Amino acid sequence: MTYDFRSDNVAPPRAEFLDAALRSCAGWMDAYGEDSITARVEDMFADIFEHEVVAFPILTGTAANALALAQISNRFGQILCHRSSHIYLDECGAVEFHNPGGRLKPLNGEGGKLDVDHCARALGVIDDVHQLRCTALSISQATEMGTYYSAGEVGKLAALAKKNGMAVHMDGTRFANVVAASEAAPAELTWQSGVDVLCLGATKGGAIGAEVVLFFDRHQAMDFKRLMKRSGHLPSRMWFLAAQLQACFQGGLWLESARHANAMAARLGAALETGHPIVPYHPVQTNMVFLKIDQATRDYLRQQGFDFYTVEDEKDGILARLVTSHATQPDDVDRLVDAIRCAVHNAA
Amino acid sequence: MTYDFRSDNVAPPRAEFLDAALRSCAGWMDAYGEDSITARVEDMFADIFEHEVVAFPILTGTAANALALAQISNRFGQILCHRSSHIYLDECGAVEFHNPGGRLKPLNGEGGKLDVDHCARALGVIDDVHQLRCTALSISQATEMGTYYSAGEVGKLAALAKKNGMAVHMDGTRFANVVAASEAAPAELTWQSGVDVLCLGATKGGAIGAEVVLFFDRHQAMDFKRLMKRSGHLPSRMWFLAAQLQACFQGGLWLESARHANAMAARLGAALETGHPIVPYHPVQTNMVFLKIDQATRDYLRQQGFDFYTVEDEKDGILARLVTSHATQPDDVDRLVDAIRCAVHNAA
Amino acid sequence: MTYDFRSDNVAPPRAEFLDAALRSCAGWMDAYGEDSITARVEDMFADIFEHEVVAFPILTGTAANALALAQISNRFGQILCHRSSHIYLDECGAVEFHNPGGRLKPLNGEGGKLDVDHCARALGVIDDVHQLRCTALSISQATEMGTYYSAGEVGKLAALAKKNGMAVHMDGTRFANVVAASEAAPAELTWQSGVDVLCLGATKGGAIGAEVVLFFDRHQAMDFKRLMKRSGHLPSRMWFLAAQLQACFQGGLWLESARHANAMAARLGAALETGHPIVPYHPVQTNMVFLKIDQATRDYLRQQGFDFYTVEDEKDGILARLVTSHATQPDDVDRLVDAIRCAVHNAA
Amino acid sequence: MTYDFRSDNVAPPRAEFLDAALRSCAGWMDAYGEDSITARVEDMFADIFEHEVVAFPILTGTAANALALAQISNRFGQILCHRSSHIYLDECGAVEFHNPGGRLKPLNGEGGKLDVDHCARALGVIDDVHQLRCTALSISQATEMGTYYSAGEVGKLAALAKKNGMAVHMDGTRFANVVAASEAAPAELTWQSGVDVLCLGATKGGAIGAEVVLFFDRHQAMDFKRLMKRSGHLPSRMWFLAAQLQACFQGGLWLESARHANAMAARLGAALETGHPIVPYHPVQTNMVFLKIDQATRDYLRQQGFDFYTVEDEKDGILARLVTSHATQPDDVDRLVDAIRCAVHNAA
Repeated sequence: MTYDFRSDNVAPPRAEFLDAALRSCAGWMDAYGEDSITARVEDMFADIFEHEVVAFPILTGTAANALALAQISNRFGQILCHRSSHIYLDECGAVEFHNPGGRLKPLNGEGGKLDVDHCARALGVIDDVHQLRCTALSISQATEMGTYYSAGEVGKLAALAKKNGMAVHMDGTRFANVVAASEAAPAELTWQSGVDVLCLGATKGGAIGAEVVLFFDRHQAMDFKRLMKRSGHLPSRMWFLAAQLQACFQGGLWLESARHANAMAARLGAALETGHPIVPYHPVQTNMVFLKIDQATRDYLRQQGFDFYTVEDEKDGILARLVTSHATQPDDVDRLVDAIRCAVHNAA
Repeated sequence: MTYDFRSDNVAPPRAEFLDAALRSCAGWMDAYGEDSITARVEDMFADIFEHEVVAFPILTGTAANALALAQISNRFGQILCHRSSHIYLDECGAVEFHNPGGRLKPLNGEGGKLDVDHCARALGVIDDVHQLRCTALSISQATEMGTYYSAGEVGKLAALAKKNGMAVHMDGTRFANVVAASEAAPAELTWQSGVDVLCLGATKGGAIGAEVVLFFDRHQAMDFKRLMKRSGHLPSRMWFLAAQLQACFQGGLWLESARHANAMAARLGAALETGHPIVPYHPVQTNMVFLKIDQATRDYLRQQGFDFYTVEDEKDGILARLVTSHATQPDDVDRLVDAIRCAVHNAA
Repeated sequence: MTYDFRSDNVAPPRAEFLDAALRSCAGWMDAYGEDSITARVEDMFADIFEHEVVAFPILTGTAANALALAQISNRFGQILCHRSSHIYLDECGAVEFHNPGGRLKPLNGEGGKLDVDHCARALGVIDDVHQLRCTALSISQATEMGTYYSAGEVGKLAALAKKNGMAVHMDGTRFANVVAASEAAPAELTWQSGVDVLCLGATKGGAIGAEVVLFFDRHQAMDFKRLMKRSGHLPSRMWFLAAQLQACFQGGLWLESARHANAMAARLGAALETGHPIVPYHPVQTNMVFLKIDQATRDYLRQQGFDFYTVEDEKDGILARLVTSHATQPDDVDRLVDAIRCAVHNAA
Repeated sequence: MTYDFRSDNVAPPRAEFLDAALRSCAGWMDAYGEDSITARVEDMFADIFEHEVVAFPILTGTAANALALAQISNRFGQILCHRSSHIYLDECGAVEFHNPGGRLKPLNGEGGKLDVDHCARALGVIDDVHQLRCTALSISQATEMGTYYSAGEVGKLAALAKKNGMAVHMDGTRFANVVAASEAAPAELTWQSGVDVLCLGATKGGAIGAEVVLFFDRHQAMDFKRLMKRSGHLPSRMWFLAAQLQACFQGGLWLESARHANAMAARLGAALETGHPIVPYHPVQTNMVFLKIDQATRDYLRQQGFDFYTVEDEKDGILARLVTSHATQPDDVDRLVDAIRCAVHNAA
């Protein structure tokens, strides 16, 4: 038996998504996103975000981020991001490739989060022909450490960006977990705080594979479909992605999945924090828990059937990363807590 | 009622593909193509092609072509292709974008097909630093005119390519139709004739959206997965693409779909050729029929509920393009034939 | 003894350019084009072109063309050019490399010249997301065949371009020869006829190495200096290029060089046309003469010390290309005419 | 009267370079680097470096660095460099642009120098498809702080690089100053210590504009000339660059210029270190002196006619940067020392 805490994308998709896709598949449909299902997606998101949106379904988060940033930055554009961000570390240079001549500029910041000070210092001299110009700022919401930005924090970063002529991108592959955790309105966390484009994920919430790029200003979306086509991301049966988005966002499935995943991480975090020698390394705010446990403990847990990844922290070395999902069961969490206690006891 | 002859990708996917995908989705699975379903795909294609292959499932034909060509060409690479080819006309520059510094060189050739003479003349001077070097040759099988290359024709083109140090790519989005029509073995049409990489389609045969890039030499596939990741084409639940490929190619579904589509085109072609004033413009070899009919006739057909695209022929102006698929019904074809007869009669 | 008819860029630079450069080099000067010599260049060209210009000195014609086209086209831009143009055949893909995602679209046309019909047919469907958009048109003035466009011809092409939202580029590496030959005003041949950006050469007229990119609309030049910097074309001692431009264009040196070169080609052309069995293949309009002479004749001429290149004509095979320059002497031309007569006599 | 300490590239070129260029310009010469002057350059550098070299003259340091790194890295290549390096901060993204898909990875390190620890930690996981692979390491010799690496330090970095399959690039725009200062042999500082490609400058030593890319292994130089052509860096009269290189490196001019510049910086540094309240911020090892002086002092110096740039140090804020060159006079340095003393006295 394996208990899988590796990532929310190794979990099985929720049955609801496959059902929705099956039902949606009704007959001859216009290709390349001109179909009726894709057409309805924009209205749905306009309701959720209380604002006009232009929406582009897309297969993967990497594609969504790279194309969205290519769209809002430019050929001399420097994109500020956190040094731990997925776009910088885990997308094989997709952002730079899709925006030739551009560059990601990695910045420091506590808990995986950008802060206004580091961003302000990174702006440099705007009219120096020898330098790339800062054109965009990318916020990971939630961060790779499982933390998130409050609407106020997003607003401050975006204000700095806007004052300096920069656009604001949000990598929202786990945006659902942030909404579920913060109870802030989607609008508040995005356009009301200055976000120009949101890459919103359904995959980690249980879709087979579907994300959506949302622009809050129609003018910023011009030619985006050409960017998609050119990168091979305009499937003829686009409606299959749109149907998954509907299944996810039309009812409350996205928040239900996220709340469950968050609750499982909270259960794990709380159990460890109560009189336990190993406490979570970062604040447990969404669906990830990081533990500073040694090689022997990690080996023991894996022998007991718990699967997980490690990440390297600059100061403190290797951390175990435990990710929960819509499919994580309370019992699995409790078993993990027991196993950790056991490992600690053995070591003592 | 609409009778849709626009493209094989507006037809509904075959139920078998959705069923297969549903059944495949069994639990926690490794992400990014490390799962067991994807692993089995290579053996399946090795059987079909009677040769070791390295196989990469991918969402769209545009992505498959662009990445395959980026892989086998290089930063100074000129890729010979037919001037009517999909990669040149209908992929928004994807090939060039994914292979920065490379170029597609469009060539003439009868019936949408490259020929050895035009290719040989296009080679230029190989060691001239002022010129791009010819590094690859791309064959569309079937062509955009619905014609196809015999194994012998492929072999001659590939021999020229090899003699000049070039790699050979085959855009096989409708490769199934060619196998069905020619009754040649897949091996014969590809590696035995000198093809290095085949982009093989399942989408036009009724999959929701799944193609596969097949390399016949392991060394040519190095780092291809990084190309996929960088372009956002490494979905975490890759198995969903692999499951569709299994459904398509494991049994004979791919050939069954193709035979049916071809038969429907043949039925249309034959009916027109028999004592009919409007005969197919190109030989009807796979699942496309081109008709030189005037604006009034096209309008009439559309009023009668027949939907189709037009293409522009260099010499003869606008042609109607009628595409059949796994979902085209004999009755639809017969109705179309009647309508054409009727239009001609009206005009006379 | 060698008589060199290979190209105007193998001729020695005129002494005036080196003298000017020496004299200009007076002391500490601001780097990267902020110096006083570079500053004066714009006024000089404004006088010559009777219009405000923004001017960027640059080392080579390839760089000038590639950067100018990168500036006026864009990431989905298709640039119409003649299939014989230097940017398509002889710059190793520089235009496409410097404009990632863009493409050169090679067109047919008599005598190396684009015509309105071919261009109009190449425009395609502007709002089709599957296609690259036509964004620019590139005119070689003079052409690679030594012919040139009248102001009226430029105007017609530019009008078509403008009507379709395209910008107009002129590759004027031999623009001096056209002005000298046509006696049209520089203004007439450029902005008055709709040209947006001119890449104007001094190198082929005898500078060591200096071209200039001239924009006739300040807004189109935005960020161009960053394009130069990024491609390594912003030398710290930019004034050395500017000084050569001054030497060339301040007095009449550019036209003097061009008139002489044209006269030498005319002398050759006229001698051949008078009762001679071998007449120039293309009209001799500037400083190039093309001859359809066989291998034996070419060998004979080379044995006699005449050096020249060959080009391949699509219809008629290999042609000898004879280029004259500021340094070509009348005696050299006469010797060449004699040698050709002799070769023909031998063959008879 | 202005005393210019801004950069060695605002100084006038040495008369010897213009003379050499004038003398070299003898008649008709083969274009694009096929001439006899360029041909001799390789032998000259082979003597200086005691090793076979392949040499490519090039106009600017930015072009030299970008093309050299494009050559040795690749489409998934991550290039380790110091966060203060010229390629990262002052070349407008040239390296990334010329190597599409690649990335510069900026690292910390004392005194502007990379160290083995930071590099080792940056290597990451080599076989992870989600990450760019580290393919090259770039050493600035001298650094932007005016410090330099000993041969031993270069060797240690290169050994780490080689062990991990990475190539080693040296940005040697001020390599002459390092040789002059360290008295190490050019061979010792480069190929003997593991450097694969050196971008060696003549411009900052007084050439008009000439650098050279030197490969120590012929195989690594393949197709480099195409890279040059494609970027517009293959001037027809290449011999003009080669002639400057000869003037610089044939006799001892390069070291003479560098020794003088270094001596002037040392004179400034020494005067400040002797009983002076303001001491150089970084060790004065080549031709740059950095001073932490306040706004008032900077203003005073500028009023007195001293021109210089400032840089921002991460910890200590704005520093004045004073650069000496072949043209700096001892009296100018002494005047500057007096002015600084005076400013300090005023402030006290």
